[in-house]
Amino acid sequence: MSGGVHYETRLRSATQEVVIGRGHRFCLIGERINPTGRRIFQDQLRAGDLSAIERDVHAQVVGGADVLDVNMGVPLTDEAELLSQAVQLIQKLTDKPLCIDSSVVEALEAGLSVYQGRALVNSVTAEDERLEQILPIVKKYDAAVIALPNDVDEIPMEPEKRLELVQKILDVATGEYGIAAHDILIDPLAMPIGADTATGEATLETMRRVRDEHGLNMTCGASNVSFGMPGRHELNAAFLTAAMTSGLTSAIMDVRTPSIVSAVKATDLLLGHDEWGMEWIARSRAATAAAAAGQA
Amino acid sequence: MSGGVHYETRLRSATQEVVIGRGHRFCLIGERINPTGRRIFQDQLRAGDLSAIERDVHAQVVGGADVLDVNMGVPLTDEAELLSQAVQLIQKLTDKPLCIDSSVVEALEAGLSVYQGRALVNSVTAEDERLEQILPIVKKYDAAVIALPNDVDEIPMEPEKRLELVQKILDVATGEYGIAAHDILIDPLAMPIGADTATGEATLETMRRVRDEHGLNMTCGASNVSFGMPGRHELNAAFLTAAMTSGLTSAIMDVRTPSIVSAVKATDLLLGHDEWGMEWIARSRAATAAAAAGQA
Repeated sequence: MSGGVHYETRLRSATQEVVIGRGHRFCLIGERINPTGRRIFQDQLRAGDLSAIERDVHAQVVGGADVLDVNMGVPLTDEAELLSQAVQLIQKLTDKPLCIDSSVVEALEAGLSVYQGRALVNSVTAEDERLEQILPIVKKYDAAVIALPNDVDEIPMEPEKRLELVQKILDVATGEYGIAAHDILIDPLAMPIGADTATGEATLETMRRVRDEHGLNMTCGASNVSFGMPGRHELNAAFLTAAMTSGLTSAIMDVRTPSIVSAVKATDLLLGHDEWGMEWIARSRAATAAAAAGQA
Repeated sequence: MSGGVHYETRLRSATQEVVIGRGHRFCLIGERINPTGRRIFQDQLRAGDLSAIERDVHAQVVGGADVLDVNMGVPLTDEAELLSQAVQLIQKLTDKPLCIDSSVVEALEAGLSVYQGRALVNSVTAEDERLEQILPIVKKYDAAVIALPNDVDEIPMEPEKRLELVQKILDVATGEYGIAAHDILIDPLAMPIGADTATGEATLETMRRVRDEHGLNMTCGASNVSFGMPGRHELNAAFLTAAMTSGLTSAIMDVRTPSIVSAVKATDLLLGHDEWGMEWIARSRAATAAAAAGQA
């Protein structure tokens, strides 16, 4: 094992704390509350109807989410108002901490201003303008933040270049804004493997280096990897196991597919994060009981 | 990525060659032709009935085996004679290379003497007596060999101790017997996770170090990990993905369970060993076609 620092990122709702870090169970962040690619949900949100969120919260909590991502990015709407409403609604439905997700600075602030606890902000990049806009809000609301090592002009493919941008983000966030390193989650940039089969190894190497050289926690959009490929569930499951083995400590992911969540839990056991295997055994028993009930 | 050497291990039947090595597709060695824990098969073999082998060969070749392990370890039988017969029979049934598996030196030699090609010998340990007995046979028959870093008195849990025994095996095999390093496959010792949840990380670290410090190829009995636990298929699949990510280049494994083989193939794709994803796409199409045929 590499030595060095082990950071712990603490997220909180009004009543629950979730700790992200090496040596802890992997943190599953549910990706579902997001209108991207969901036409019906988009139409509902445009009409001010947030009722579908209740079902998404329930399914993800049952599926094993530790944290819920909330994105209200619907074109031609007041995203700040929608995100504020969604965050308030979801806090009534669950005590899981939230990841407040928008590319619109005003929407992030609107979401954070109504959130009770320590949120995760999704996200900032290494672009100067984004750093200047978003990091003050992260600091103001005492949040943690996801940081993507991409620049104005490119998403770099080389791990070396990604690591340079990680260093830049780290320097600016800690040095200029006083954000603690343990509150920065690096996104090592998981790209669709179907577009370029070299991208998987580049992302895994980025993870190893962020872990070994910085000790920073990480998260990524794990479902991107399988985009455009058949067998998406199997690919997502294998990617998460490979990524956890390479240092990834959380992911924004599909928590509603049991085979994908099982891969994460099996890997937690293999990496020594599930003492005595108690969680794995309980999960297997519950699955067996559910299957028996289904047949009865 | 670590630099250094990349060894290639070449196994051959009379007509086929399989290459094991980093950068190549993972080599799947079918574990099924083995009477351990199979009472009916044991009784058949005691009666000189080898007919069950035909079914095992077929199922494993269909499942995706690149190589077949052959073990005839039945108590109170002439294992050398049984192994000789089995090897001859299997060569008539398939052109996959074989892994000749016995703890009995005479049985290994009997199997090798009737084998046409370059076999893999399973296995030698770091014990002086075993090295002296088995390595001359490996050299005589121009085979490759699986080497376990365990000593007379213990199976060491610490990666450091395992690495010391790897070095010892390497020194003896190359220095005293003239066996090439590329013909030595290290078994990093996959132990049941249920007995000790720290064992997974110890095995994965051993793999990383064998890869980074020696560049040697590796194999292991991948089904051991889940022994005694529920959800064995999911655990075996996650272990294989984690192990491949850590440098494992082949495994003696359950190739008859599609979800386990899929995890290996997905990981090959993620690690850049499946150019353009052609094998993954073909596999997914075949699975879809088979499912459609089953419903028709």
